[in-house]
Amino acid sequence: MKEKFYDYIQKLQDTITSKLEEVDGKALFQEDLWERPEGGGGRTRVIENGAVFEKGGVNISKVFGELPKSMQTYFGVEDADFFACGLSLVLHPKNPMVPTVHANWRYFEMYDKEGKIVDQWFGGGQDLTPYYLFEEDAKHFHQTCKKACDAHHPEFYPAYKKKCDDYFWNAHRNEARGVGGLFFDYCKATETMGMEDWYKFVTEVGDSFLEAYIPIVTKRMELPYSQENRDWQEIRRGRYVEFNLVHDKGTLFGLRTNGRIESILMSLPPHVQWRYDHHPEKGSEEEKLIQVLQNPKDWV
Amino acid sequence: MKEKFYDYIQKLQDTITSKLEEVDGKALFQEDLWERPEGGGGRTRVIENGAVFEKGGVNISKVFGELPKSMQTYFGVEDADFFACGLSLVLHPKNPMVPTVHANWRYFEMYDKEGKIVDQWFGGGQDLTPYYLFEEDAKHFHQTCKKACDAHHPEFYPAYKKKCDDYFWNAHRNEARGVGGLFFDYCKATETMGMEDWYKFVTEVGDSFLEAYIPIVTKRMELPYSQENRDWQEIRRGRYVEFNLVHDKGTLFGLRTNGRIESILMSLPPHVQWRYDHHPEKGSEEEKLIQVLQNPKDWV
Repeated sequence: MKEKFYDYIQKLQDTITSKLEEVDGKALFQEDLWERPEGGGGRTRVIENGAVFEKGGVNISKVFGELPKSMQTYFGVEDADFFACGLSLVLHPKNPMVPTVHANWRYFEMYDKEGKIVDQWFGGGQDLTPYYLFEEDAKHFHQTCKKACDAHHPEFYPAYKKKCDDYFWNAHRNEARGVGGLFFDYCKATETMGMEDWYKFVTEVGDSFLEAYIPIVTKRMELPYSQENRDWQEIRRGRYVEFNLVHDKGTLFGLRTNGRIESILMSLPPHVQWRYDHHPEKGSEEEKLIQVLQNPKDWV
Repeated sequence: MKEKFYDYIQKLQDTITSKLEEVDGKALFQEDLWERPEGGGGRTRVIENGAVFEKGGVNISKVFGELPKSMQTYFGVEDADFFACGLSLVLHPKNPMVPTVHANWRYFEMYDKEGKIVDQWFGGGQDLTPYYLFEEDAKHFHQTCKKACDAHHPEFYPAYKKKCDDYFWNAHRNEARGVGGLFFDYCKATETMGMEDWYKFVTEVGDSFLEAYIPIVTKRMELPYSQENRDWQEIRRGRYVEFNLVHDKGTLFGLRTNGRIESILMSLPPHVQWRYDHHPEKGSEEEKLIQVLQNPKDWV
C-alpha cells in the first residue's frame, strides 16, 4: 500500500503542477529534492511571481524510521517505527478575486520492533479560502467534494465537511479560515471499508482537486481589482498566517520535529498586512465574507 | 505595591507615547480603553502610518479575579485569585535602518481564597531587532541596559542578557529574533532583594527605555534606503511574526486565555513578506546580520 500510494502522489504532483503551470502561463515550478537524515525525503515544488499564482507549493514527502519522541507522545505509543507519505499544496493567487486553496492527502503506517504493521491509516482533505465571496464558487468547490465522497459513502461528505469547518476554525478570531471543504483523518480499516477502499476514496478526492479548483481560477483570474481589494486580501492573508502558525497541527508538528522548514512554511503567503483593529464597512463585500466565516454554512 | 506599580506604568506610558509622538512628528497614538468582563481592563495606544513609526503599540493593562484554568495549570496551583498589571510595547519603524524594539514590564500577585498574598513577582525586559546591523547601536542599547542593571546588582546584566538570548531564540530557524537586551521573570523577594528593591530595579529599567532606544532612532531615521532594503525588512519581519505566533509565551497565553486579541496582536508588523528559501548573498550586509543572529554575541 505504501508504494502504491507514494506512486500515486508522485503522479498527482506531476499532473497538478503541469496544469497549474498551464493556467499560470508565465511562471514555472522550481523543484527542490531534499533528504531527511533519519530516513526519507521529499520533492518540493514551488511557484513564485506567476501571472496568476503569486506564491504556491505542491510538495510530496516520504519519511520513515524510528518514531520521534514527540510523535510517540502524540500517538500515545512507545518505541515504534513508522512510515508516512503525503502530498501537501497551498496556492496563493495574485488576484484577490481568486481564492487561496489548500489540499493534503497522506498515508501513515506504524510498525512494532519486528517490523510488523500494527496500525495504518489515510488522512487528508482540501479547503478553499476566498477573499471575496462568490457563492457559486463555494458551491462548485463543495459540490465537487461531495461528488467524490458520495461515490464511496453517503455519510462521508456531511461528516468530512463538518470536520473541515471544525478543524480550520481560527479560534482566537472566532471565525473560520475559509469556506471549508473536506477534512478526514485516521481512516482505518473497518468491516465495511478496507484499506483498499480507503485508497480508492482518498485518490478519488485527490483526483477531484483540479476539477474543484481550476474552474474557479479561470473564471476569476482576469477580474479587475483595486488597491483596496489587494489590501483586504493581504489583511486576510494575515489570518491565514495566524491559523497556520498558532493552530495548524501539521505545521506545528513539522516545526517541532525538525521537519524541512522551507517546505513546511511554503504555505505562508508572499505579502501580508496586519492593521490594528481593522473592520470592514457595514454592508460591504468584505463584511459579507466575514459573516460567512463567522457562521459556516452548507453549500450544497 | 500593585497600586504603586500600576501608577508607575500609567505615567511611563504617557512619557513614552509623548516622546514617540515628538520623534515621529506626524502620527499620533490612538487610544482604546477596554474592559475585561472577569475583572480589570487596559489602555491600548497604537500609532500607525507615522513618518518614523509604521506601526506600534504602547499598552498597559491590569487584570484580576479568579486565576483562569489554563493559568492554574501553568503555575501549578489550584483555585486561586490573581492580580497582574504591565506595560507592553512594540515599535515597527518604517525605515529598515531603524530597528524594531519590544519592551515589557509587569507585576504579578497571587492570593489564597482568604485574599492573602501567597506569591508576588516582577518580570520584564527590553530587546532590539535590527534589519541592518549597526554595531554601535547594539552596543548603545546593551550599555544602557547594563547601566540600569549595574545600579542594583553586578550579576543582573550578564544573567538577564543571557536569559534574553535564550528566550528570543527562534528555534525552528536556528537564529535569534534580534540582538537581545534584557529578560527577567519571577523576580521574588530574597534575603538581599525585597519587593521594594525589585520595584526600584524594574522601574529603573523602564526609565532607561527611551534612553536605550531613541538615540538609535534619531541617528538612523533619515538614512536613505532602497526597495531591496525594504524587502529585506519585510522578510525579516516574517521571522518576527513566526517567533511571536509560534514561540512567544505571552502571545500564546493571551490567545488561549481569551485576552483582548487586538491589543495582543498589535505586536505584528504592518507589511510582511514570505519568500521561499530566501538567503542573503554571501558577504552582504544582510548576511552580516544573519551571522550575528545565529551566534549571539556580547555587546559590552
